[in-house]
Amino acid sequence: MSTERADTLYPTRRLRPSKISIVGAGAVGTALAYACVIKGVARDVVLYDIAKDRVEAEALDIAHGIQFTPVGSIVGSDDVEAMRDSDMIIITAGPKQKPGQSRLELAGATAAMLEKMIPSLLNVAPDALYLMVTNPVDVATYIALKISGLPRTQIFGSGTVLDTSRLRYLVSQATGVAVRNIHAYIAGEHGDSEVALWSCAEIGNVPVSRWGATADGRPFDDEIRSDIAHQVVRSAYTIIDGKGATNYAIGLAASNIINAALRDEERVLTISTLLDGWAGISGVCMAAPTIVGIEGAGRVLEPPMTLDEREALSASALALRHVTADLGY
Amino acid sequence: MSTERADTLYPTRRLRPSKISIVGAGAVGTALAYACVIKGVARDVVLYDIAKDRVEAEALDIAHGIQFTPVGSIVGSDDVEAMRDSDMIIITAGPKQKPGQSRLELAGATAAMLEKMIPSLLNVAPDALYLMVTNPVDVATYIALKISGLPRTQIFGSGTVLDTSRLRYLVSQATGVAVRNIHAYIAGEHGDSEVALWSCAEIGNVPVSRWGATADGRPFDDEIRSDIAHQVVRSAYTIIDGKGATNYAIGLAASNIINAALRDEERVLTISTLLDGWAGISGVCMAAPTIVGIEGAGRVLEPPMTLDEREALSASALALRHVTADLGY
Amino acid sequence: MSTERADTLYPTRRLRPSKISIVGAGAVGTALAYACVIKGVARDVVLYDIAKDRVEAEALDIAHGIQFTPVGSIVGSDDVEAMRDSDMIIITAGPKQKPGQSRLELAGATAAMLEKMIPSLLNVAPDALYLMVTNPVDVATYIALKISGLPRTQIFGSGTVLDTSRLRYLVSQATGVAVRNIHAYIAGEHGDSEVALWSCAEIGNVPVSRWGATADGRPFDDEIRSDIAHQVVRSAYTIIDGKGATNYAIGLAASNIINAALRDEERVLTISTLLDGWAGISGVCMAAPTIVGIEGAGRVLEPPMTLDEREALSASALALRHVTADLGY
Amino acid sequence: MSTERADTLYPTRRLRPSKISIVGAGAVGTALAYACVIKGVARDVVLYDIAKDRVEAEALDIAHGIQFTPVGSIVGSDDVEAMRDSDMIIITAGPKQKPGQSRLELAGATAAMLEKMIPSLLNVAPDALYLMVTNPVDVATYIALKISGLPRTQIFGSGTVLDTSRLRYLVSQATGVAVRNIHAYIAGEHGDSEVALWSCAEIGNVPVSRWGATADGRPFDDEIRSDIAHQVVRSAYTIIDGKGATNYAIGLAASNIINAALRDEERVLTISTLLDGWAGISGVCMAAPTIVGIEGAGRVLEPPMTLDEREALSASALALRHVTADLGY
Repeated sequence: MSTERADTLYPTRRLRPSKISIVGAGAVGTALAYACVIKGVARDVVLYDIAKDRVEAEALDIAHGIQFTPVGSIVGSDDVEAMRDSDMIIITAGPKQKPGQSRLELAGATAAMLEKMIPSLLNVAPDALYLMVTNPVDVATYIALKISGLPRTQIFGSGTVLDTSRLRYLVSQATGVAVRNIHAYIAGEHGDSEVALWSCAEIGNVPVSRWGATADGRPFDDEIRSDIAHQVVRSAYTIIDGKGATNYAIGLAASNIINAALRDEERVLTISTLLDGWAGISGVCMAAPTIVGIEGAGRVLEPPMTLDEREALSASALALRHVTADLGY
Repeated sequence: MSTERADTLYPTRRLRPSKISIVGAGAVGTALAYACVIKGVARDVVLYDIAKDRVEAEALDIAHGIQFTPVGSIVGSDDVEAMRDSDMIIITAGPKQKPGQSRLELAGATAAMLEKMIPSLLNVAPDALYLMVTNPVDVATYIALKISGLPRTQIFGSGTVLDTSRLRYLVSQATGVAVRNIHAYIAGEHGDSEVALWSCAEIGNVPVSRWGATADGRPFDDEIRSDIAHQVVRSAYTIIDGKGATNYAIGLAASNIINAALRDEERVLTISTLLDGWAGISGVCMAAPTIVGIEGAGRVLEPPMTLDEREALSASALALRHVTADLGY
Repeated sequence: MSTERADTLYPTRRLRPSKISIVGAGAVGTALAYACVIKGVARDVVLYDIAKDRVEAEALDIAHGIQFTPVGSIVGSDDVEAMRDSDMIIITAGPKQKPGQSRLELAGATAAMLEKMIPSLLNVAPDALYLMVTNPVDVATYIALKISGLPRTQIFGSGTVLDTSRLRYLVSQATGVAVRNIHAYIAGEHGDSEVALWSCAEIGNVPVSRWGATADGRPFDDEIRSDIAHQVVRSAYTIIDGKGATNYAIGLAASNIINAALRDEERVLTISTLLDGWAGISGVCMAAPTIVGIEGAGRVLEPPMTLDEREALSASALALRHVTADLGY
Repeated sequence: MSTERADTLYPTRRLRPSKISIVGAGAVGTALAYACVIKGVARDVVLYDIAKDRVEAEALDIAHGIQFTPVGSIVGSDDVEAMRDSDMIIITAGPKQKPGQSRLELAGATAAMLEKMIPSLLNVAPDALYLMVTNPVDVATYIALKISGLPRTQIFGSGTVLDTSRLRYLVSQATGVAVRNIHAYIAGEHGDSEVALWSCAEIGNVPVSRWGATADGRPFDDEIRSDIAHQVVRSAYTIIDGKGATNYAIGLAASNIINAALRDEERVLTISTLLDGWAGISGVCMAAPTIVGIEGAGRVLEPPMTLDEREALSASALALRHVTADLGY
């Protein structure tokens, strides 16, 4: 093999089966593992957790159904070594909020966990892509980026991929048009300060503002938009009230991000990524429409936005910046 | 069939999108719904439960990820009417075992539930196929068959489809051959008296008895077979010890049965079906290799079996017969 | 509907496996059948052609590979009866252009074929959706609509679904963004007068006009747009020069339309449909972004367009109107 | 990276998208490329042929439909360099039989082509797996193995994977059981001397000899078996008579072999592989049930066979050995 070939985009020569590792065998981690195995997103899936019995049981429960999925493997382990040479590592584990604990205190506990976890992950998989799913995801992504010293492309968060999916689902329900033809984004913090970018939202290529009547005959006006945006933010709470947690949709959203990366899809996804001048915002990780491929987080797209939308994004960024600063990052 | 139903959205000879309903939004029902939506097994999925908030939350959590699956819909409801005109109804709901309650008492509680539930289901979906997943599945299938008065083809249980999958998984692990090339069945009760039909088990078309050494160099002898069969039976307990329930693999197994029926696959699956002379057994529902297609449970195959295997199956049938007789069926 | 049909295998309210029939076993019809079988678009596929040996050979060649696809069936036949009760019929057959024959004469030959074929198809499948693929597709769709007397929703053409796909492919190549994130349409005649709707074209939600530099550093200016639109129109000729026909991409495009209909996807596709006031155009079948679901061709979307685009579409419509009028429709 | 990690099974660390190259843009090569793109078997597909205009046209025709497939790319090229660093190379190209040319002369022409082609392929992709599809496939596989000097695992032929699929299809048609539950193999030469291994053939786990009546009520006796085996061998001729070539089923069969290798499925497939003592046969490449995974052709399984079957296989091997010897290999 000549030297210059080592410089090409994909330097290594012999194919390996793809391998991903999911850190955390809670409701989110196992739903994600299940979705990944059913969709065949990777050849080999490792589910890691410090709770040995639980993680082995969860992996075994999925493994028993392997006959009904594309060929693959899944193993559960409490040994970091099992994740060695992963192509992608997805972190879903996080401390639980204790009674009386403030949100900042929770973020601090997450930071402490990451400070301990990241170096051991880098030790076994220095070249993996890292996807943060643990909440607060934007703060966790920023901290993990700083701790790891990895380039921006290699470590990013699930951001508002799920929120964007929820928005599209609700617009689809309101208009009777397939979710795939709803082109709309939620950007900013994955949380209360997130921003639905209505000004560039489209159904087919028809701007929402020109759509006319919704499925139930109401005009698609500011009130409906506001309702929908509010529902997106409230969704998580509604689901938590009803079932105690949200896990299935985030499992699908994260499996979609993994697929975009491993298959080198170059898709536009509102992942949480370190911004550098996007909408005038820098030095914070938050969701923005970003091209995702095998190199990880690529170019961030800047759709046209109104001044109101830009200001709301700036406020979202500022809030996030405060949290990371308070935590010493 | 009432006249007004002929006026519904999809006239009779015109294609309707497929519709399935899952009764019970517990760990099994929701894992099954998730698997069905990800695999696109049916166009429309209804998740039904008497716990309104919970069932709506579970369905909404999956619905938010619809963007990442084949096009479909999922709704949660506590209204039986939502299941009207389903093509297939899958029953996963069941009473929980109370402290001090015997297994027979539990079966009695299940019978009581079915006596109430089946008529209301038949009212909204008289032509649906019915798949029982609720445990004890063989007893539940027999009772539901009797209550409903439906033909044997139309109502059947998940049987040992999962146990068979576990067996194949373990043989695959032991030999390094893909699960799809492991041809082996578990028949009988889905439970402690189930029988691994080793005498006809094959890897590729090589009988297990002639396979030679396993992946770790041991011969594939009686000891390994016994180990594996034991592991299959113990699997559920191990998983329940580790995570409190089994749900993911049964979700995949059941989604596979549904697909075989709706796609008219004519696949051989060890569903629980009313036997009539199979291996000399009649008048009991238990697992045997059965062809599953759009007409439901078809011909039951009788692979060559040893006398020991046949006797073990008879014992399994007898035990099941006792339970249903004790319950008055 | 005759009484005896109610007695067929699948009683009216009970799910039937989906069935499609493809008329014409030429390069396009067989590529379409192959794509449909591989993707599992329908359970049963009938390939029909008057050339008995050929159509049976083509179907058999695909059938031998059924093991490697989702479960289904494919049969070839020269008997119209084989298409009875199809859910969708796709017409790819058409007369070949003879030396010295004008384009109008060819359209006349197509019209003559349809006058003979449509009644016999309606006889066996009066409730099917009809998809015209035969060229000139817009003229063929209009004529078939008139001959059949079917509502606009039930009969439509492949229009510029392929041209739109070509446009998106070229924009994807130019920008390095996944095809799925290119939102752009070609409308009008499937042919030289078709119109790329650049003014509403977007990448992610970024208008093409604000995209900035393409992958090779050139600005995405009028010149590039004009180049790309020209390439789309020229593509068919280039491929025909190189391989004698185009068939693979149209096979995929048509399989996608079929799936949108049978799965009730409600997707926006630039099928050829009878327009009634769209962009000021009426009484002609040509491509416009249309919602496609189980009811067939639904609402036609009207994205914002420039005056130039509207005038080009009017010219396209006028040309098509002349052809159908000359043919006496 | 520590030294010992370089010794693991999958040594390289960062994931590359998978890349396959198909040599020959004829009917088989393009059907194979189409099937691979639709199924998403590899991320990147290269179609290579010396006929530049044709290969570019074929690849472009498929590329235009990429929007309707899993994300991927396909390019056509007449430059060997385009295949550099492929994970798998599939050779479908071959000389056409000239009028008056004997079968041996044709094999000689194939050998001459391979002598020229293999070194240039090895130059750009020394670590690729090589799959021979060119006929006579067993002879071509043996010669390519000798020319390349590659280990047996790395270079193998499509063998009777298609014939086995045809056999299963016919048994499925005769019994009404899904193709996936028909466990039967054709071994030996891909051609007139191939051998259906009826003695170990099963439906579900029921031996064919104990199946009972077929779908049309005839017993599944020697006559039916002989009919079916005869039909398998005649199939290619029937299809060639009807359409001039066989290409669709072989495209699916080969795409299945590629998937088994790239996904590391460890599936049992009747590829053509260098035998060493299998059924007493050595030093010849012919079809036998072989485990296929990421390391290529693995262990060859030896199902129980009758003396007649073994003798027929020996005769098949002898015939093949004569051809390669006559060609000087």
